[in-house]
Amino acid sequence: MSKPTPISGFPEWTPGQRMVEQFVLDRIRATFELYGFAPLETRAVEPLDQLLRKGETSKEVYVIRRLHADAEGAGGDDQLGLHFDLTVPFARYVLENAGKLAFPFRRYQIQKVWRGERPQEGRYREFVQADIDIVDRDTLAPHHEAEMPLVIGDALRSLPIPPVTIQVNNRKICEGFYRGIGLTDPEAALRAVDKLDKIGPAKVADLLAQTAGASEAQAKACLALAEISAPDASFADAVRALGVSDPLLDEGVDELVRVVETAAEHSPGLCVADLRIARGLDYYTGTVYETQLRGYERFGSICSGGRYDNLASAGAVSYPGVGISIGVTRLLGLLFGAGALSVSREVPTAVLVAVTNEERRTASNRVAEALRRSGVPTEVSPSAAKFGKQIRYAERRGIPYVWFPGVDGASDEVKDIRSGEQVTAVAQEWMPPVEDLKPTVG
Amino acid sequence: MSKPTPISGFPEWTPGQRMVEQFVLDRIRATFELYGFAPLETRAVEPLDQLLRKGETSKEVYVIRRLHADAEGAGGDDQLGLHFDLTVPFARYVLENAGKLAFPFRRYQIQKVWRGERPQEGRYREFVQADIDIVDRDTLAPHHEAEMPLVIGDALRSLPIPPVTIQVNNRKICEGFYRGIGLTDPEAALRAVDKLDKIGPAKVADLLAQTAGASEAQAKACLALAEISAPDASFADAVRALGVSDPLLDEGVDELVRVVETAAEHSPGLCVADLRIARGLDYYTGTVYETQLRGYERFGSICSGGRYDNLASAGAVSYPGVGISIGVTRLLGLLFGAGALSVSREVPTAVLVAVTNEERRTASNRVAEALRRSGVPTEVSPSAAKFGKQIRYAERRGIPYVWFPGVDGASDEVKDIRSGEQVTAVAQEWMPPVEDLKPTVG
Repeated sequence: MSKPTPISGFPEWTPGQRMVEQFVLDRIRATFELYGFAPLETRAVEPLDQLLRKGETSKEVYVIRRLHADAEGAGGDDQLGLHFDLTVPFARYVLENAGKLAFPFRRYQIQKVWRGERPQEGRYREFVQADIDIVDRDTLAPHHEAEMPLVIGDALRSLPIPPVTIQVNNRKICEGFYRGIGLTDPEAALRAVDKLDKIGPAKVADLLAQTAGASEAQAKACLALAEISAPDASFADAVRALGVSDPLLDEGVDELVRVVETAAEHSPGLCVADLRIARGLDYYTGTVYETQLRGYERFGSICSGGRYDNLASAGAVSYPGVGISIGVTRLLGLLFGAGALSVSREVPTAVLVAVTNEERRTASNRVAEALRRSGVPTEVSPSAAKFGKQIRYAERRGIPYVWFPGVDGASDEVKDIRSGEQVTAVAQEWMPPVEDLKPTVG
Repeated sequence: MSKPTPISGFPEWTPGQRMVEQFVLDRIRATFELYGFAPLETRAVEPLDQLLRKGETSKEVYVIRRLHADAEGAGGDDQLGLHFDLTVPFARYVLENAGKLAFPFRRYQIQKVWRGERPQEGRYREFVQADIDIVDRDTLAPHHEAEMPLVIGDALRSLPIPPVTIQVNNRKICEGFYRGIGLTDPEAALRAVDKLDKIGPAKVADLLAQTAGASEAQAKACLALAEISAPDASFADAVRALGVSDPLLDEGVDELVRVVETAAEHSPGLCVADLRIARGLDYYTGTVYETQLRGYERFGSICSGGRYDNLASAGAVSYPGVGISIGVTRLLGLLFGAGALSVSREVPTAVLVAVTNEERRTASNRVAEALRRSGVPTEVSPSAAKFGKQIRYAERRGIPYVWFPGVDGASDEVKDIRSGEQVTAVAQEWMPPVEDLKPTVG
């Protein structure tokens, strides 16, 4: 068999990197649980018609089929696709299980998703997202929109990564403002402004003229709104200074003031009202979030989301929600790429128990059992080679200690192979220093 | 939108069941790490030709394609399929990264896999497996085959589930024995004997005659071998008593004696030599394992694996390995179905902080912050409804405590809503009893 090669867009971490990922996921999960979010996992597949409800994302979907499905007939089966995010499956789950759930329902969901996009730096075809959402029946209290950034702020602060800035906006501000200045297709205007970071103001102005029918003055007003940014409620004054009046605009400003003020009260410096934030996906109807990792702004948002009022409804009952999603693979990919995140050793093992000769392997196994009972990750040497070779086995993997079982009544000894220090020890009692017990991430 | 319905074979747990699953996965992972296995995750997809190398599994594969792939040409792209186990991807990973890995390489891998099989009780199309494998370059020491059941025994003993019996056999025994009695197609004989539990000895004898060309005496000998079972090395005497002589048979018996004796020494009662165990997949070449959950034997094996010598090789270099896989979804599905495994509450939350009125929500948020800093999972009430209604919010979710912030200088109070006991408390100092801090699984 020839040597296999990687598949573009489907990243695979080394075991060391996977330890970092697990550390990160454990911390995120712990924070989500501290806020009372219950865990959920949905199946990887959804009916294709569910996935295609939002036209914009249809190009990204992977369809699956059983290799031998044709031969067995029943070609009319519902087609299934891999989910491209965790929000659409969650909305479906809520509708399917509404009778069994208690509302408001708070859940977190950490899973892989798949998108058939063209791979590029920071973009993957398979990646892990860590989501929280709160949905309620009929109405969702606005304070939940203020809670999202606080949870994310705590989760990301628990990680050994640079600090973040969460940029918040509100779709109602944009939509109300665009209507207020006389634009009839606010969706199109939003899509144009969403490209501001990528193509710059001049080209956005062209796009506003072409796709949203904006006059020069209207385009200028849209860009002026998008330029507003403030770490506090003063953004509202800047919006008012533009002299546009619209009830939806006012509602959006009030909601955004609340989000920004709550954040300032509980987590100063975390959030900024940034009125250029639009979010490409079109199911958002209120607050929207993006997150910049300081020093890595050129990579774009590592955590995004927003409020959606129309994603799930059955008959007269609707389930408005708000959610936010950490792009874990994206975050790790860029920090690994920058050499900014690593682990202290490539294996969990803290102790390698040497084997004097194969006849005495049982004695080494017994030492390992005692150490494991104390919670010390332990391997037994795979071979009874010369001790020098066994020590090199530990060295190559970053295992800090090698244990030598005593022979013929002699005491056991344990060697710190970094310092060379070797002391007598009893397996039932010995513990390494806490910083050596598990690999450390940083 | 009409109410969505489940998709057969793609199970979704409730949040409470997902908590149980996370508990189980955390415990399994902790045991794997105590034995020094490093974590690995591989992508969900493999090139189709990789997945189809073993003919027997080809019918189970899901193929994926990008919905808009046709429109963009390049129809000649390598086809990708979802992996149906974690062993084939691991073998590919080892070949791809051999230059960067230290051998013997010990890794664990806990991931979903997909099989397009007809769904039935205990069989899923999407399910989680938890695997350990050890691979070495060129040769793999046989003591690794004895280590596998010990790790699994520890991992499963750490769970609140019934005890297990691990049944072990060795392919060399079967193959050597079949050759020794003059059968020329030992593979066919193995496949026939593998059906013993399903179709019984009479039909296996027929099958042996039809597919392996066995005479009546040969079929009888095969069945006699398959009937041998012992918790210790005495199985070897029973094999010898059948009077068949073959060098491969002797090698297999020696290897199995070692596995059984090591298990008896370190974990009495865990393993049984059971010579009917064959394993359907044909890449095993030595020891094979199956695991019965006591009281649930009719559901079949919940943890299986074996030694494989020919799964990964590049040019003159081969990478023999041994691995074993816990069928986590299968295990949970049958225990959930039997009502034998549950969690004490449906949310992680230990405390609900009541909200006196919306103007005082910030005060409740501050209490929640203090409790979370002490590691107490805490929610703030979503509404400032009457306290009775807020308490019912907690009751419905099994949240044990409701916290009432003091108003106008009064002390805060916390109520155990199960006993009704209410005491004054300070958020910075209060802790619930340890058994209430997190949901308990059992």
